[in-house]
Amino acid sequence: MNPNSELGPELQSLIVRAEQALSHSLPPAEQSPADLHRAMRYAVLGGGKRLRPLLVYAAAHALGEDGPQLDAAACAVELIHAYSLVHDDLPAMDDDALRRGRPTCHIVFGEAMAILAGDALQALAFELLADDPRIDANTGMAMLRALGRACGAEGMAGGQALDLAAVGHPLTLIELEHMHACKTGALIRASVQLGALIASADADTLNALDRYAHAVGLAFQVRDDILDVEGESAVIGKTAGKDAAADKPTFPSIIGLDASRARLAELTDDALAAITPLGERGELLRELANYAAHRRY
Amino acid sequence: MNPNSELGPELQSLIVRAEQALSHSLPPAEQSPADLHRAMRYAVLGGGKRLRPLLVYAAAHALGEDGPQLDAAACAVELIHAYSLVHDDLPAMDDDALRRGRPTCHIVFGEAMAILAGDALQALAFELLADDPRIDANTGMAMLRALGRACGAEGMAGGQALDLAAVGHPLTLIELEHMHACKTGALIRASVQLGALIASADADTLNALDRYAHAVGLAFQVRDDILDVEGESAVIGKTAGKDAAADKPTFPSIIGLDASRARLAELTDDALAAITPLGERGELLRELANYAAHRRY
Repeated sequence: MNPNSELGPELQSLIVRAEQALSHSLPPAEQSPADLHRAMRYAVLGGGKRLRPLLVYAAAHALGEDGPQLDAAACAVELIHAYSLVHDDLPAMDDDALRRGRPTCHIVFGEAMAILAGDALQALAFELLADDPRIDANTGMAMLRALGRACGAEGMAGGQALDLAAVGHPLTLIELEHMHACKTGALIRASVQLGALIASADADTLNALDRYAHAVGLAFQVRDDILDVEGESAVIGKTAGKDAAADKPTFPSIIGLDASRARLAELTDDALAAITPLGERGELLRELANYAAHRRY
Repeated sequence: MNPNSELGPELQSLIVRAEQALSHSLPPAEQSPADLHRAMRYAVLGGGKRLRPLLVYAAAHALGEDGPQLDAAACAVELIHAYSLVHDDLPAMDDDALRRGRPTCHIVFGEAMAILAGDALQALAFELLADDPRIDANTGMAMLRALGRACGAEGMAGGQALDLAAVGHPLTLIELEHMHACKTGALIRASVQLGALIASADADTLNALDRYAHAVGLAFQVRDDILDVEGESAVIGKTAGKDAAADKPTFPSIIGLDASRARLAELTDDALAAITPLGERGELLRELANYAAHRRY
């Protein structure tokens, strides 16, 4: 448990809820194959912002839903996120030794086990969604479709492929935003969508929430790039200046720091505008949009 | 298209059907991100025995079902199988340069793209099952549960972890069979189960088919180990004697070649006995059990 001090008490308590559900959903560390289970638990339970589970809960809360079946969706999106970090950190990918202030999964468990742990986490995410008897079958199928699409070649995996192809190549702002929309945006949009589907959102509300999620996802990434320039490694929990050093395209490297800040403000305004119709019920979503834009780590 | 000459005409035509469905289900090679799509297609469409899709079709046929919704299940299990081979072949895992007589995926596309292609194939498998409107939602959820469980830490990924841990360590026959039951058996059982679920099998039939699938899966593996001793690389499409050279536990290395042949006969008898109640309708399943036991590659 490591609730984020940049968030209010309700979101902090939802982080605790998500972490309890995650711990419960993962296979026990002492059970065979123990190495695999330990690597899976290490990858998921070592802190992290829990943005995606929070978006599941916040979207559902905005529509009056707070049932225990939200936990399956919250866990599913976080398991997918955790697996993607394990694979992205591998030597053949971004070759990162530090994540959330700790050695990365392959440093601790070896490359083979890190690959397998990621694979098993992805499978577990889909299994959790398919295995919750509190989710009715039609809603479950819609959720599984959304999650599958967000993870695959049109979504997260496709975005990582675009990211790899971009190293050392100049990207336009449009190309950079498209890469992020796939690599991280697709799963963030799926998180909001899963919460909304459980809450039986109508089509207009789904569309408004999707506009919100698209803007928040991109804002989160712009803020990440700004922090990579401004932040200190000890605060952000990973190596500062790493993206620039790796010759990765970033918002500041393409449009400069001032224009990046302006783009961040624009995205935040768009996210907040999208959920205006929700009124007071959108409070947690508003708080998350502001957190994405202003967070210090 | 490379129908297997060791199979009869009906199974050969089902291989063609599966390969057409697979090609259709994969993202187009010319569409961005093209590298990822090409790696995914290379991993799936380069031949292979198509045992798992054949088991989907054969199980459903035995219960009188031959509808187009079988294709989604046939593709899903083969995509999972293909992804597992791509990841297993990686340098950090089995470090294999040859598969089905061709260079492995990471040799052609690089390690990063091979990892991503595997990840995207897994996601696509779940998406296909969740996305077929011809599958009713309750059946779909049961299929997704079965597939998720077969892929994860209790199934295929767990089995690969046990396999990695076994290199250089003596295993008992029971441990070896448990490893194979997870590593390859779980997905083979899921293949039969998916076909049976689409065909609305009752509980007794599901149990009988599961006993069949367990035996066929293990028989296939025993035959693999025997071929690794007896076969020639050019015929089996991979490096003969590789398992023994890698100090991997095999049936012949643990119980000897004669006892391995006896175990294979016993498993085949058990598979055939399990489907006796199906009578003539079980013909394709019978053919597949005999193929698993007697195949020359």
